[in-house]
Amino acid sequence: MAELRRDPLGGRWVIVYTDQPTLPQDFEKESHVFKQMACPFCPGNESITPAEIEVIRAPGSKPNSPGWQVRVVQNKFPALQIEGDLDRRGIGIYDVSRGIGAHEVIIQSPDHKKEIADSSDEEVMNILSMYCRRSTDLANDKRFKYVLIFKNYGPSAGASLEHPHTQLIALPMIPKNVLEEIEGARDYFNYKDRCIFCDIVRQEIHEKERVIAENKYYLAICPYVSRFPFEVWIMPKKHNGYFCHISKEELPELAKILKEALQRLKVVLSDPAYNYIIHTSPVNTPEPEEGYHWHFEIMPKLTRVAGFEWGTGFYIVSTPPELAAKYLREAKI
Amino acid sequence: MAELRRDPLGGRWVIVYTDQPTLPQDFEKESHVFKQMACPFCPGNESITPAEIEVIRAPGSKPNSPGWQVRVVQNKFPALQIEGDLDRRGIGIYDVSRGIGAHEVIIQSPDHKKEIADSSDEEVMNILSMYCRRSTDLANDKRFKYVLIFKNYGPSAGASLEHPHTQLIALPMIPKNVLEEIEGARDYFNYKDRCIFCDIVRQEIHEKERVIAENKYYLAICPYVSRFPFEVWIMPKKHNGYFCHISKEELPELAKILKEALQRLKVVLSDPAYNYIIHTSPVNTPEPEEGYHWHFEIMPKLTRVAGFEWGTGFYIVSTPPELAAKYLREAKI
Repeated sequence: MAELRRDPLGGRWVIVYTDQPTLPQDFEKESHVFKQMACPFCPGNESITPAEIEVIRAPGSKPNSPGWQVRVVQNKFPALQIEGDLDRRGIGIYDVSRGIGAHEVIIQSPDHKKEIADSSDEEVMNILSMYCRRSTDLANDKRFKYVLIFKNYGPSAGASLEHPHTQLIALPMIPKNVLEEIEGARDYFNYKDRCIFCDIVRQEIHEKERVIAENKYYLAICPYVSRFPFEVWIMPKKHNGYFCHISKEELPELAKILKEALQRLKVVLSDPAYNYIIHTSPVNTPEPEEGYHWHFEIMPKLTRVAGFEWGTGFYIVSTPPELAAKYLREAKI
Repeated sequence: MAELRRDPLGGRWVIVYTDQPTLPQDFEKESHVFKQMACPFCPGNESITPAEIEVIRAPGSKPNSPGWQVRVVQNKFPALQIEGDLDRRGIGIYDVSRGIGAHEVIIQSPDHKKEIADSSDEEVMNILSMYCRRSTDLANDKRFKYVLIFKNYGPSAGASLEHPHTQLIALPMIPKNVLEEIEGARDYFNYKDRCIFCDIVRQEIHEKERVIAENKYYLAICPYVSRFPFEVWIMPKKHNGYFCHISKEELPELAKILKEALQRLKVVLSDPAYNYIIHTSPVNTPEPEEGYHWHFEIMPKLTRVAGFEWGTGFYIVSTPPELAAKYLREAKI
C-alpha cells in the first residue's frame, strides 16, 4: 500500500511507495530502448496480466484469451490500491492518507506495433469508447473525485512497455493541476459569464494561425501558451464539461481528429515520444463546474525540463506555437 | 527578443522564442553525452564568452583572461534580454509582454571537472558568495520581481556544457511555483502566526528520520513530501526570507552542508544528474513576506516525469524520503 502525502506549502499531493521502495541500485541509467522480454500485452499472454476488467472481443471468444480488440486490466504494479478507506490524518504539520485509488491499463490493440496513428478510424473509436466506459464505471465509486486517462508513448516519455497502451488512474482528490484549470476557468466565468475554453475555440478559429485540424465537432490547435514545442490540444467546439458525455455522433469525429493530430506529429517530428492526457471535470462533486470544458493535451517529448522550469513553473518554448501549427498543418499525411 | 505569454487558465507564464525558433529537424534525439568541442568556460577561452560581469580573480590578473576563480558572464543564448520595457498587453483573451529579464552564467571554477562535491570549502564559499553578489546587484533593477539561481548538472538534467556552472535568471514577475509556496506559507502564517518553514525545521530535527546533515546554522533533509526520489532540501535553521542576507558567519556553514549533501548524493547514487534551485523571497515588493524562508531544493534526475505527473501535478515517489535519508546519512564520504 502506498501513502498519499500532502505538501503543506502548495497543497500538492504525492504518492509515496512505502512498502516496496526503489533502492539506489535499482535506478537504471536512462535508457532509450525497451527491454527484450515476452510482451505481457500480446495475444496468447493474457495469463501474465491480471484478469480483464472490461473488454471488446469477438463473439464466442473466451475471457482472458485471444480474440479481443481492446482489453482493460488492473496495472500489475499499481500506484494506488482499490480496496480500503482513505484514513486521512495529520502527522505534526504534515497530512497523509492511505494510497486508495484505481490504476488500470487499457491495451489498445492486439497488434504489438499498431499505435493510434496507424489504426483504422474504427479501431480508434473502440479505444476512445473504452476510455469512456472505464471513466463512467469508476465515477460510480463515490470515493473517487477524479479519473485521469493518460498515455506515455516511447521510453523518453516514461513508457516501460512498447505494446500500445493507455493508463487510467482514479484519485480520491482533485489533482492540483486540474484544480488550477478549474479555478482559472471559474474566475473567468464569474467575470465574463462565458466559458474560457469556448472563447479560446472562438478566437483560434477566427485567427486560424494556431489551428492544425478542424471538423464538425472538434478543433486541434497548438495552444497560444504551449508549455512544450509542438504541444497540441484537441477541444470540443460545443461546450461539454465531461469527456465521457461525448455522443455517438461525435465519437467518429473525435477518433478522426485524434488520429490526424498524432499522424501529423509523427510525420513532422519523426515519430517522437509523447504523453497525452484527457482533462475532464471532477466526478462526485456537489455541482458541475459551468465554465469547464474537457480537452486532450498532447505533449511531444523533444526537450528536457530542467532547473529553471522546476524552480519557477515557467516553461521555455523554443518553437512558437504559430510556427509549430504551420508545420503540422502543412505536413503530408 | 523572446515573448512572455500568460496562460489565461492557470496564470502560468511561458517564454516563447519567437525570433530564433527551433525547427523540427533541430531537436536532437536525446543524448547522454556532451558534444566534443572547445570548452567556452575553460581558462584561455574567455574571449568566446560575453565579457565578464563580475569575477573573483587573482590580484593583478586582467579582466577576461585567466587568473579567475569564479566568473560571471551573460548567457550567450539568453532566454530573456536585459534591455527594454515589458510592454504588457492583451491579444483577445491572451496576455503577452516582451521577454525582458537577465540570464547569466556563473562559471564555478577554472577546473573543467571540479564540481562542488570535489571542491574545497573555500571554493564553495566563493561560489555561494558570488550567487549572493549577483542576486543583490540584480535586485537593484526595479523592473525585476524575482531572481532565480539554478543549476543543471549532467545532460539528463538539462545541462548542455560539462564545465561546472550555475545559471541565474531575473524575472519581471514572481513565478507561479514561488507564488504558490509564498501563498501557502502566508495562509499558514495567518492561521498560526508562525513560519511554516521554521515549524518544518523544528519537526524534522525532533523526528530525525529525514535528516541527512545538520550544523550550527543549517539543516539538510529529504522532505516529507519529496516530489523525486532522493530529493534534498537545505534550510537555514534561523528564520530568514532572503538568500542574499546570509551573514559572513553563516556562509562557511552553508558551504559545508551544501558540499556534504552533494557528496552524499554522489556516493549513494553513483554521481547522478541533478538540478538544484534556490527559492528565496521576491524582490522589489512593497513589503517582505513574514512567513517565507529561503531554501535550496536539490532534485536528482533518477526517474522520468510522464503523463500522470503532467496531467495531475501529483508525483509518484518510489523511494520514501525516510529511506532515502537513511542511505544518504549512512554513506561514507
